[in-house]
Amino acid sequence: VDDPPLYYWDYLRLDQLLGCQDLESARRGELARDEMMFIVTHQAFELWFKQILWELDAVNERMGQDIVPEREMGQVVAGLRRIVTIQRLLGDQLEVLETMTPLDFLDFRDLLIPASGFQSVQFRLIENRLGLRRRLKIKGSPYTSVLRPEHVEMLDRSEHEPSLLDHVERWLERIPFLRFGSFDFWQAYRDAAEQMLARERRTIQMHPNLDERARAEQLAQFEETAETFEALFDAEQYERLRARGKRRLSYQAFLAALLITLYRDEPILQLPFRLLTGLVDVDEGFTTWRHRHALLAHRMIGDKIGTGGTSGHSYLEAATQKHRVFADLFDLPTFLLPRKALPKLPPQVAEQMSFRYTP
Amino acid sequence: VDDPPLYYWDYLRLDQLLGCQDLESARRGELARDEMMFIVTHQAFELWFKQILWELDAVNERMGQDIVPEREMGQVVAGLRRIVTIQRLLGDQLEVLETMTPLDFLDFRDLLIPASGFQSVQFRLIENRLGLRRRLKIKGSPYTSVLRPEHVEMLDRSEHEPSLLDHVERWLERIPFLRFGSFDFWQAYRDAAEQMLARERRTIQMHPNLDERARAEQLAQFEETAETFEALFDAEQYERLRARGKRRLSYQAFLAALLITLYRDEPILQLPFRLLTGLVDVDEGFTTWRHRHALLAHRMIGDKIGTGGTSGHSYLEAATQKHRVFADLFDLPTFLLPRKALPKLPPQVAEQMSFRYTP
Amino acid sequence: VDDPPLYYWDYLRLDQLLGCQDLESARRGELARDEMMFIVTHQAFELWFKQILWELDAVNERMGQDIVPEREMGQVVAGLRRIVTIQRLLGDQLEVLETMTPLDFLDFRDLLIPASGFQSVQFRLIENRLGLRRRLKIKGSPYTSVLRPEHVEMLDRSEHEPSLLDHVERWLERIPFLRFGSFDFWQAYRDAAEQMLARERRTIQMHPNLDERARAEQLAQFEETAETFEALFDAEQYERLRARGKRRLSYQAFLAALLITLYRDEPILQLPFRLLTGLVDVDEGFTTWRHRHALLAHRMIGDKIGTGGTSGHSYLEAATQKHRVFADLFDLPTFLLPRKALPKLPPQVAEQMSFRYTP
Amino acid sequence: VDDPPLYYWDYLRLDQLLGCQDLESARRGELARDEMMFIVTHQAFELWFKQILWELDAVNERMGQDIVPEREMGQVVAGLRRIVTIQRLLGDQLEVLETMTPLDFLDFRDLLIPASGFQSVQFRLIENRLGLRRRLKIKGSPYTSVLRPEHVEMLDRSEHEPSLLDHVERWLERIPFLRFGSFDFWQAYRDAAEQMLARERRTIQMHPNLDERARAEQLAQFEETAETFEALFDAEQYERLRARGKRRLSYQAFLAALLITLYRDEPILQLPFRLLTGLVDVDEGFTTWRHRHALLAHRMIGDKIGTGGTSGHSYLEAATQKHRVFADLFDLPTFLLPRKALPKLPPQVAEQMSFRYTP
Repeated sequence: VDDPPLYYWDYLRLDQLLGCQDLESARRGELARDEMMFIVTHQAFELWFKQILWELDAVNERMGQDIVPEREMGQVVAGLRRIVTIQRLLGDQLEVLETMTPLDFLDFRDLLIPASGFQSVQFRLIENRLGLRRRLKIKGSPYTSVLRPEHVEMLDRSEHEPSLLDHVERWLERIPFLRFGSFDFWQAYRDAAEQMLARERRTIQMHPNLDERARAEQLAQFEETAETFEALFDAEQYERLRARGKRRLSYQAFLAALLITLYRDEPILQLPFRLLTGLVDVDEGFTTWRHRHALLAHRMIGDKIGTGGTSGHSYLEAATQKHRVFADLFDLPTFLLPRKALPKLPPQVAEQMSFRYTP
Repeated sequence: VDDPPLYYWDYLRLDQLLGCQDLESARRGELARDEMMFIVTHQAFELWFKQILWELDAVNERMGQDIVPEREMGQVVAGLRRIVTIQRLLGDQLEVLETMTPLDFLDFRDLLIPASGFQSVQFRLIENRLGLRRRLKIKGSPYTSVLRPEHVEMLDRSEHEPSLLDHVERWLERIPFLRFGSFDFWQAYRDAAEQMLARERRTIQMHPNLDERARAEQLAQFEETAETFEALFDAEQYERLRARGKRRLSYQAFLAALLITLYRDEPILQLPFRLLTGLVDVDEGFTTWRHRHALLAHRMIGDKIGTGGTSGHSYLEAATQKHRVFADLFDLPTFLLPRKALPKLPPQVAEQMSFRYTP
Repeated sequence: VDDPPLYYWDYLRLDQLLGCQDLESARRGELARDEMMFIVTHQAFELWFKQILWELDAVNERMGQDIVPEREMGQVVAGLRRIVTIQRLLGDQLEVLETMTPLDFLDFRDLLIPASGFQSVQFRLIENRLGLRRRLKIKGSPYTSVLRPEHVEMLDRSEHEPSLLDHVERWLERIPFLRFGSFDFWQAYRDAAEQMLARERRTIQMHPNLDERARAEQLAQFEETAETFEALFDAEQYERLRARGKRRLSYQAFLAALLITLYRDEPILQLPFRLLTGLVDVDEGFTTWRHRHALLAHRMIGDKIGTGGTSGHSYLEAATQKHRVFADLFDLPTFLLPRKALPKLPPQVAEQMSFRYTP
Repeated sequence: VDDPPLYYWDYLRLDQLLGCQDLESARRGELARDEMMFIVTHQAFELWFKQILWELDAVNERMGQDIVPEREMGQVVAGLRRIVTIQRLLGDQLEVLETMTPLDFLDFRDLLIPASGFQSVQFRLIENRLGLRRRLKIKGSPYTSVLRPEHVEMLDRSEHEPSLLDHVERWLERIPFLRFGSFDFWQAYRDAAEQMLARERRTIQMHPNLDERARAEQLAQFEETAETFEALFDAEQYERLRARGKRRLSYQAFLAALLITLYRDEPILQLPFRLLTGLVDVDEGFTTWRHRHALLAHRMIGDKIGTGGTSGHSYLEAATQKHRVFADLFDLPTFLLPRKALPKLPPQVAEQMSFRYTP
């Protein structure tokens, strides 16, 4: 305990932290005051990206275990919730950038060429850690061409490490209860779903308030839904969807996710359900952030190309739509059954899903 | 003054207001508790839509005057700022909806068919009031087919009233200063822009750090930019863009908006500049709201069709991209010049742009 | 199924809902446009208050059961989380009110006398439902004097119904595990806490970097902490604190809350811990809302008395500090022990706290 | 132009920035994962504090000029708006901190002693730059005793530099129009106010719906208001208030602020009014942040003393109430007159307040 007493300024390394805002415009002798805000905002982004990576690493480590202990599940969920809270911040930071007018940005924008936010290695690491596939990345994106070799290598490496999507998939595949003693969840679900579909088809066919055009339209749409279910009931058809990139999770994992969603009130499934919800929230968070970022780029630079040489806001907008990792989970509600149509769990299954202690 | 003393409960008509949450699920004898939240949230949306219409009406009335008095400009800007503040609320309200899980929604979702948020007449009135053109509306959208005759009529009528876009266009066309005595803003700007473009082309051609592929790419992109400017310098070409729906403002109005943006620090242009910024903010606010709404629809109902019979989230996502009213203003930054390249205003022009009182 | 097809406008009762904005200023023939926003904002508040009451009723009903089934605990927590999400909205709605300037408010403020937000019966019902005690309410508050008899009666009745605080207290008192077979949580905790205190006292006494003044100060503060612990170890002293209004939960309930907080990673305690966190969040949400409301009142009416005849912002600010229901839970961290100092649970206790199913 | 091409990673000094998160817990060999979040959040705070200081310096520089050019007023207002946008971020960052539970904080809390957020030199610099007076700082606060000599010196120096409050005061004192030719704003206002007060007194005395007790109460409150006005009409009495710390602005400055608020629709007063509003917003932003920070401290450490040796949350809560710089501006609405009671400006005064150019 010979250490000198800890001092806030030193603990946070403020000499170092507050010493790395070097305005390019000042260096060139033509100070553009707003560049400070531009730098500080981007540095704050990178600080938070580091924190998100830190949380994702912990989540991946826990989820990568052969058996994830119940007590750690809570921490995984807490990690995802923290990421969602940080994402809200990232959105608000865009509002700080928006306080700069395009004309003020122009005062130093050209000095930054060819540097660009596309070079944010940490953001790409986050995408890889989550499980964004390279082939999902937008064509024509200057993905790694603009990065330094050591950064390209970091990204390449991270693409070969198991992602959160991989871990979640394997964890889902190991979820028990899909078949439990004599109870076959899958068969029970399938029967119930087919009954529901038959009922829905009949409703549209009979509905007195639909004119012929409306009825035909709704029937056409209904048949699409019915086909989607067919693809769920048929492992081979599911695999074809997957081969075409429409699904990413394995068949077994997708079914387990459905089970969790349907029976999420059972004590042992409550945390797994919150985990799935957390994944959807995180995906939605980044999607919305990309969308807002694209709008910001549009209003800042108009139709011009970005400092990194990309086509700017239309590239960003395209990425918004494609860069979803857990789209399968977004699609899950398609296959939900109303509670009253849901097969009841046999008592011995329900009991196994509960706590040992009973009052 | 024989009125009884005003009472909070009566002033807000709370008997009436708090008496119009009739749960369809309760009426059918199968209460789904979350339906209350669903109704309350949508009612709150409609309350705020009414308020937005109220503000837009005031804005349109003021902007529709032949001459908009300076003191009213401040109120117009304040109206737009209030709308932006309300839009933030609308976004947060989506987060309340997200606290409902898809399974809980399913408890009453089918009871709502064929009612749907697409039937929000007020939201469509807002779109019309802002100036969304019918032909801009997504093809295949069940625009008015699902509405009651009186609502169809309301919408039709509102499409023929001058919109905010119309008023702004005419106000911009009347902005003086484009030619002021011997000073021709337009010629001065054009000279400066052409010099800047020549400089940029040279930079790319000469830049030592670009390899051939990169240089070719950047040149190709640059030429696109240059063409965009050409289209700005040539009224006929501009009109062709407009005919193809790429521009909505008249040539004269577009130039005036550019003038305001470039010289927004002159006292008389400060409020007009804030007005243009406010229009972009409002447009961005609805765009982001639509985007988040589409995500919400996806996670609530998956890939199924919505209760209104539309294709749900993908329809909404498509609308997000197309339903921008003031896209021209988003594009303005394309044509900005750096302050140092900006033609100086002759003193007598600058003086006219200032206050009468001088200390 | 002879019902006509459901129509969005009717489902939400929009004729009724959008028909209850009656501007007092318009009625008197001197339209103040901002009054619409004032009414709409307050009506939105009341809609959300109704929703919060709806959620609190469900929470209270579930928590009021002799044994709260595990599957319902998840719904209780979800209810609290929804309330927190709504509270965020309430805060943002204040920002809409802030877009009105004091001068614009003055245009209709006097017309509202003596109506006042203090007459919001629903807000007081929320306070009562949560468990705010009447004697905690600020002295001099015009609590019920300004309300109509039927509203006074509603509030009186709600004060005699068991509140969320009551339910939580009884639920906590029934939590098992405080003594489990031969394991006495309480004795183990007490030993550990006393060791920690002894260690802390020694650290201050010995710390080389403290000068005499600092050491004396820190020791004095430490002794206060030590006394707080004494009061925890001594049921009688705890009851004296409670008699003085410094604690509200019973001794037994307070200890159970401490147990949950310390061992919240055990599967069976994860939801109870989230419940306690949710209560703190809800309390904090209302506290912050009151604080912001007080600031708003100050900037809207300055130092004048409010329309309801109360002293305005200083009354509100005072309420902010006192109107906390779950202050006991805020104080809990005082008594936490670092994980390494925490007594380990015997295996058979830990096992009872886990799921029946083990992989 | 021999510089190597700019690279995002280098431009933001990410090696340096992302290299200054040194976890004290890791250094001691007992990694507490949440310490990363604790450090990152506080570093983000300090980055934004730097940005706020950067904006305040620009604001102070502009406002410190003998005559503030109109075009710079817009930039001053934009600077304040940016600070308000950043303050919203600061609030959201507290929510990230709240994702840490007290037990997790305890894992590393003691390692930080005696470092503490009270040692944030930048935050104190912000307070000084705004104009918080040392004597306003809470008694018993360890203000500078815990800081390093060089930081104490920085703070001392900043206390002797003119603050934003000082600049605003002097700028207000120089506002013309208080007496303009034969028009004496002050006399006109005073007459109108006295008429209004007489009318209000009469209303309370005559109001048929007040019983005797209510009437007496309201009259007592009214007389307080009347006295406040008296103090405004009487420079000596105003100075006495000021001597007692109830006012900070000079008499002349206070009157000018009132003039601006009353006639803020005149073109030349629109920006000054937005400036005053911005000051109130900034003050409110810090006040709310302090309040939320105090709540956070309470729920993180309970009733214990903070790591810096202060009494924690109750100290913070006290500071919340006292640390307001522009309280005078919050009080202004006390003295507003309804528009219809407002003395009309003579045409030649109104003309001087308008633009030179007239269409």
